[in-house]
Amino acid sequence: MTRGTLYGVGVGPGDPELMTLKAARIIAAAPVIAYFAKRGGRGTARAIAETHIASTAIELPLIYPITIELPAEGAEYHRLIVAFYDKAAASIAAHLAEGRDVAVLCEGDPLFYGSYMYLHDRVADRFVAEVVPGVTGMAGCAAAAGLPMTYGNDVLLIVPGTLSEPELERRLAGTQAAVIMKLGRNFPKVRRVLHRLGLADRATYVERGTMSNGSAMPLTQKRDDAAPYFSLVLVPGRERRILAEAV
Amino acid sequence: MTRGTLYGVGVGPGDPELMTLKAARIIAAAPVIAYFAKRGGRGTARAIAETHIASTAIELPLIYPITIELPAEGAEYHRLIVAFYDKAAASIAAHLAEGRDVAVLCEGDPLFYGSYMYLHDRVADRFVAEVVPGVTGMAGCAAAAGLPMTYGNDVLLIVPGTLSEPELERRLAGTQAAVIMKLGRNFPKVRRVLHRLGLADRATYVERGTMSNGSAMPLTQKRDDAAPYFSLVLVPGRERRILAEAV
Repeated sequence: MTRGTLYGVGVGPGDPELMTLKAARIIAAAPVIAYFAKRGGRGTARAIAETHIASTAIELPLIYPITIELPAEGAEYHRLIVAFYDKAAASIAAHLAEGRDVAVLCEGDPLFYGSYMYLHDRVADRFVAEVVPGVTGMAGCAAAAGLPMTYGNDVLLIVPGTLSEPELERRLAGTQAAVIMKLGRNFPKVRRVLHRLGLADRATYVERGTMSNGSAMPLTQKRDDAAPYFSLVLVPGRERRILAEAV
Repeated sequence: MTRGTLYGVGVGPGDPELMTLKAARIIAAAPVIAYFAKRGGRGTARAIAETHIASTAIELPLIYPITIELPAEGAEYHRLIVAFYDKAAASIAAHLAEGRDVAVLCEGDPLFYGSYMYLHDRVADRFVAEVVPGVTGMAGCAAAAGLPMTYGNDVLLIVPGTLSEPELERRLAGTQAAVIMKLGRNFPKVRRVLHRLGLADRATYVERGTMSNGSAMPLTQKRDDAAPYFSLVLVPGRERRILAEAV
C-alpha cells in the first residue's frame, strides 16, 4: 500500500487571502485535515483555511491538554505536553500508514515557533513530510503597519517577550531591527526595556496584524498596558535608511 | 480623478505556487506592473509572477544602474542609487496620479531587505500604499530543508554575511537560532565563524531553496567554498527541543 504524505501547511498570519496558492491546493486535496486547538475551540488555523477544506475530509483536531502559552518549566507540564505530542503524532502516523495524506494546518509558517515542529520531529523519520512555508505573523504585521523593517545589511533580532527583563535588555542592546513577540502580560516589561535602550521612539505596536479587528500605532502613543498575546512590537532598522530619503 | 494605489506585492521565495492568493489577485488586476531587474534581465520577481500578469498591463521595469549587492560605502554609489530610486518613484507616482494602480513585484516579502522599501518611503506619504506580505526566502529555505527552526522561546538572529568577521562573531555568539543570508563570497568567513562558535555542527546550508535547482545539506558536508548570493545558512534553535523527543 502507498503510504500517505505528511504536509505541514502554513496558512499565513490571519487574513485567509494571505494563504499561498500551494497551501490552498494541498488543503483542498487532503483527505485528512489536522489542526491544533484549545479545548472547546476549533483553532485559528482551521478558521483561516476553512473555505478550502473538502467536505469529505476527515478532521483531526489536536486539542492541547493545557495552554502552552504558560511558562513551561514544571515536570507535570512537561509530562503532559510530551504525551500530547506523542499521541497526536501517533494518530497522524496511523492515517499515513493507511495511505491517507494528512495536512496539518499551521498559523503563520510551520517551522518558526509552531507546534507542527513537534509532530514533524516525531513523524518525518518514518514518513515523507513536506513543509509548505507560509507568511509569518511578523511579515503580516509589518505589512499591516506599512513599516519597512530591514534595510541593506541590518541585523534583525526576533525575541519573545517572555524572556526575563535583563535578558531582553542584553539581547536587544545594539540591535538594528527587532521584532518582540508574545507580548500579553510581558508588555510593560518590554516597553521599559525599549525605553531604556532608546528604541521606543522608533517602535510600532501592532495588535492582531492582518485580522479585521487589527490595529497599529507608534509605541509612544500606546497608553495602557493591555496587549493580547498575539500582538508584537516592531523596531525598524536604520542601516542604509539614508537611501530611502530623496536628495 | 481617483488616484491609483501603490501595491508592494511579495511574490514569495521562488516557487510560483508560494505566492499568496492576494498577491495573485492584485497582480492580475493591476494596470501597471513594476519590478526591479538588472540591466539586460527582467528580474526574478517578474518571472515568479509571470502567469498572473494581465496581457494588457503596462510593464515598468526598474533597472538598477549598478549591482546593489556590492558594498555601498562610496559617494558615487550613493549618488547613483539615490537618483535611481528617485526616478523610479517619480515614474510610479506619475501613474498613480493619473489614476492607475501600480503593483511592484517583490521577491520574498516587500518589507524585509527589499528594494521596494525605498519606493515606499518616497511614495507612501502622498499616495495610498498597501503592502501584501509574502513568504520570505528564509521560510522557503527552512521548508525546503525540512528544518524546524525556532522552538518555544528561542531567540532568532537574522544576519547578513556581509558583516565583518569580528562583527559576525560578536552578533552570533550566544544566539539560539540564526539565519545567515547573503553568502556569496562571504561564505568562507561565515563558515569560520560558525566553527569557532561551535554552531557548525547543527547548521544547514541551503542554496536556491524553493527553486527547481535548489539543494540543502549539513554545513559540515559542504566541501567547497562556492556559494551563490542567494544561498543561506540555517542554525536551528534548541529551546524546548526536548519536547520534540518522544519519551
